[in-house]
Amino acid sequence: MGSKDSRYIRVFDTTLRDGEQTPGVSLTLDDKIEIARQLSLLGVDAIEAGSPMSSEGEKKVVKEIAKAGLDSEICALARTTRADIDAAIECDVDLVHTFVPTSPVQMKYAVGLSPEQVLAATVDSIEYVKKHGLKCEFSPMDATRSELKFLKQVCQAAEKAGADMINIPDTVGIMIPRTMRQLIEEVKTAVKVPISIHCHDDFGMAVANSLAAVEAGAAQVHATINGLGERAGNAALEEVVMALHMIYKFKTGVNTRLLYSTSRMVATLTGISVQANKALVGENAFAHESGIHTRGVTAKPLTFEPIKPELVGRTRKLVAGKLAGTRGIKAELEDVGIHPTEEQLKEIVQRVKDLGDKGKMVTDADLIALTSAVMGEVIQEEKIVDLGDLAVITGIKVIPTASVKLILDGKEYIAAETGVGPVDAVLKAIQKLTHNLAKIRLKEYRLEAITGGSNAVAEVVIKVEDEKGHIVSARAAREDIVMASVEAMINGINKCLIKNRKLGNKK
Amino acid sequence: MGSKDSRYIRVFDTTLRDGEQTPGVSLTLDDKIEIARQLSLLGVDAIEAGSPMSSEGEKKVVKEIAKAGLDSEICALARTTRADIDAAIECDVDLVHTFVPTSPVQMKYAVGLSPEQVLAATVDSIEYVKKHGLKCEFSPMDATRSELKFLKQVCQAAEKAGADMINIPDTVGIMIPRTMRQLIEEVKTAVKVPISIHCHDDFGMAVANSLAAVEAGAAQVHATINGLGERAGNAALEEVVMALHMIYKFKTGVNTRLLYSTSRMVATLTGISVQANKALVGENAFAHESGIHTRGVTAKPLTFEPIKPELVGRTRKLVAGKLAGTRGIKAELEDVGIHPTEEQLKEIVQRVKDLGDKGKMVTDADLIALTSAVMGEVIQEEKIVDLGDLAVITGIKVIPTASVKLILDGKEYIAAETGVGPVDAVLKAIQKLTHNLAKIRLKEYRLEAITGGSNAVAEVVIKVEDEKGHIVSARAAREDIVMASVEAMINGINKCLIKNRKLGNKK
Repeated sequence: MGSKDSRYIRVFDTTLRDGEQTPGVSLTLDDKIEIARQLSLLGVDAIEAGSPMSSEGEKKVVKEIAKAGLDSEICALARTTRADIDAAIECDVDLVHTFVPTSPVQMKYAVGLSPEQVLAATVDSIEYVKKHGLKCEFSPMDATRSELKFLKQVCQAAEKAGADMINIPDTVGIMIPRTMRQLIEEVKTAVKVPISIHCHDDFGMAVANSLAAVEAGAAQVHATINGLGERAGNAALEEVVMALHMIYKFKTGVNTRLLYSTSRMVATLTGISVQANKALVGENAFAHESGIHTRGVTAKPLTFEPIKPELVGRTRKLVAGKLAGTRGIKAELEDVGIHPTEEQLKEIVQRVKDLGDKGKMVTDADLIALTSAVMGEVIQEEKIVDLGDLAVITGIKVIPTASVKLILDGKEYIAAETGVGPVDAVLKAIQKLTHNLAKIRLKEYRLEAITGGSNAVAEVVIKVEDEKGHIVSARAAREDIVMASVEAMINGINKCLIKNRKLGNKK
Repeated sequence: MGSKDSRYIRVFDTTLRDGEQTPGVSLTLDDKIEIARQLSLLGVDAIEAGSPMSSEGEKKVVKEIAKAGLDSEICALARTTRADIDAAIECDVDLVHTFVPTSPVQMKYAVGLSPEQVLAATVDSIEYVKKHGLKCEFSPMDATRSELKFLKQVCQAAEKAGADMINIPDTVGIMIPRTMRQLIEEVKTAVKVPISIHCHDDFGMAVANSLAAVEAGAAQVHATINGLGERAGNAALEEVVMALHMIYKFKTGVNTRLLYSTSRMVATLTGISVQANKALVGENAFAHESGIHTRGVTAKPLTFEPIKPELVGRTRKLVAGKLAGTRGIKAELEDVGIHPTEEQLKEIVQRVKDLGDKGKMVTDADLIALTSAVMGEVIQEEKIVDLGDLAVITGIKVIPTASVKLILDGKEYIAAETGVGPVDAVLKAIQKLTHNLAKIRLKEYRLEAITGGSNAVAEVVIKVEDEKGHIVSARAAREDIVMASVEAMINGINKCLIKNRKLGNKK
């Protein structure tokens, strides 16, 4: 499968332009610069930084990215008007990407231009960009719904006007690989300039169509991290690149080991989370639950994995669940140093299945808890501080208030505090007690973003610092934000105290 | 594009089997029956209900679905062992789907069988199913990594043993459409029995590969709602079906108008939410933000939409944002009965862009608020619902509880609720009151990440949905997470009620 040819395919990233057109996404200047730096590190050939004409802020962003000294070429998008192109040139980019629709429906209704006007605008805009000494990429928008004869005519005019690359957009995502291959072959009969491809995912085929275009000779692919973009989005960069490398054995400039961290960064900054079953970067892409799969994967990963997860910067994950097999659960337990007997393992697997049949997701903590029950021994953590009682109240005309009882080395201590909210009040009350005993203070509080229902699990990560400046981080996840915060704080204090006492004993 | 042929393609849904193998997903008996009923209503030809051998609970589920009197054929999955097949037969299904690996790596490491043993198991299992008078579908697992000669041999043996359908699984998702078409053509030279296709999405090509198999003559496609399944999942049913109908002009039994509601049900019950930019069923699949797009779409939807959203049971959505154009925002405001002058509209668009440049998502509530500021009149911060009193408590041995007093059209209503945490409790209490009045429910709760101290500002964005499926978003930012959540919820309910009353007045 795939050719032995080692063609180099250019990767043109449009996360910051088409990706930011994702409805609901707005990135700040800092966000966009952070993403641009990461994309450059990732090794994309070009970064489309934005549409300078759309707002003053957007223009400033493109300018800043252009002068950040990145390895990737920086591109700005412009309609075929002088005002748009001037705004792009003003940003001092390497490359201007101009576009105008060429399909009957878009010429008439989206821009109100006749075919003759479209041809003239094409030529004028490209010549204008080239006159300023910049590279120019040109897109006949909605190419896949354009009349082939007119499309070729526009491409020929663009080539003659000096375009360095012609990009074929499947603007509403209606192609299939077979028709895409035919179209690119047709366009290549008309022009010699390198062809690029820009696909949308309205029928879920953006990646396959992009690859079909490459098969037909396209030299560059437009893509976005996580497949962001207008409506159903664009071709996902991670999928296109991995297919090019692994299936076609083609080359790109992308360092694939950075794909996962890049995906995480973009998901966090855009707020568009990645579906669990998204290829390569979804939470489950390298996770295995069913028995036959975990058995195979633990014996030889290749049985149920197309590629090594490390190639995209990830690790394999075995998940306990009602379909899980004995080997998967054994491997998962051995991973944390627990070695049940055959008999115990059988019982553990049974209990996991029972939990699954009740519709429960089996967490790592659940697995440890039921394992410790089966093995008849408490897999214990040294606890110096333990939480006794706790009550927290907030509301309207209620000052957020918390009272807490901690048990420290067997003794009970009680305190109450108010705060700006319930979390603030309870963490202050806990610190009031522990501060006297060990001078531990909360240094940082971080709550991971939650998307879901109001009953979604909140994950809190805290950092506490003792008087010697030792910093310890701890985490807790609960459906109750207040309780997750408390648990993380108590975990952190315990770790800090244990560490101090161990260090103290050594001296 | 696409052929005029009107072939009928069978749709075999495996949401309840491969979809449930999605790590972390566990469905209860009731969940699975509810989904099975919906799938039958949707019009799929076959429903793979589960693997009866995997647990007692699973066997019960398959039995219950088989006797629910659904229109779709009910199928159970079985390895080629007698025990597995007996468990399937016991469930009284219409169809047994047996499978055994045929690739060297899986034969050796996943099941430990020689090629001869695999051949024997194939024949024995199919004959055993047929002897019991049931239909049998057979899968040579990992077919796409099997030696072609051996694969054909197994398929021929399966056909001779009486298999009614041979399903070709691309178990680790390594095909591309071109190689898939070749493989199916090869298999069809060896056997006459109808061919089915089962694709995984590890490189994002499950849908395109399924369609390529159909091009090569496959009569049936395995698919799952939302593309759920092991690792990166299976081919998404909604994408395959819509491409078959719209691009290929083929027929299926699926009533496409139920695709969106089915997707929502599966997302809710499995807890695997759909990415915003997922084709057809993602929140943004028919949403438009950028100016040129909204201009085109408001003039003629076809400009930037491949299909009418109504075809999959949805509606179009225009979104305000920094890339939004004047027409889109005008259309959005007119939608809620607000008619700014040209001058005002210009100023509103500017303020939307300013907000966007700051990295803020522009919610519906933000748009109304800044419009009312610009138009110099309070667009009746017409609060239909107002918050009176509120008290929320949580702690240890305290069930998170909230009591709330709402003032609605001048009347006071009181309710209390418990929840998994204080936010859940208070939002439930509010919904309890408003649900009776307007059937408004919380659709999504999003808390932006907080980093700082425990007194950092928490920003909550919520989406509420009324009974007609209108979705409204609102935001609030406070130091108290509970109060921010309450404020966002009340804002959202108010906007939803205002919108409904205006729409009501129009009629």
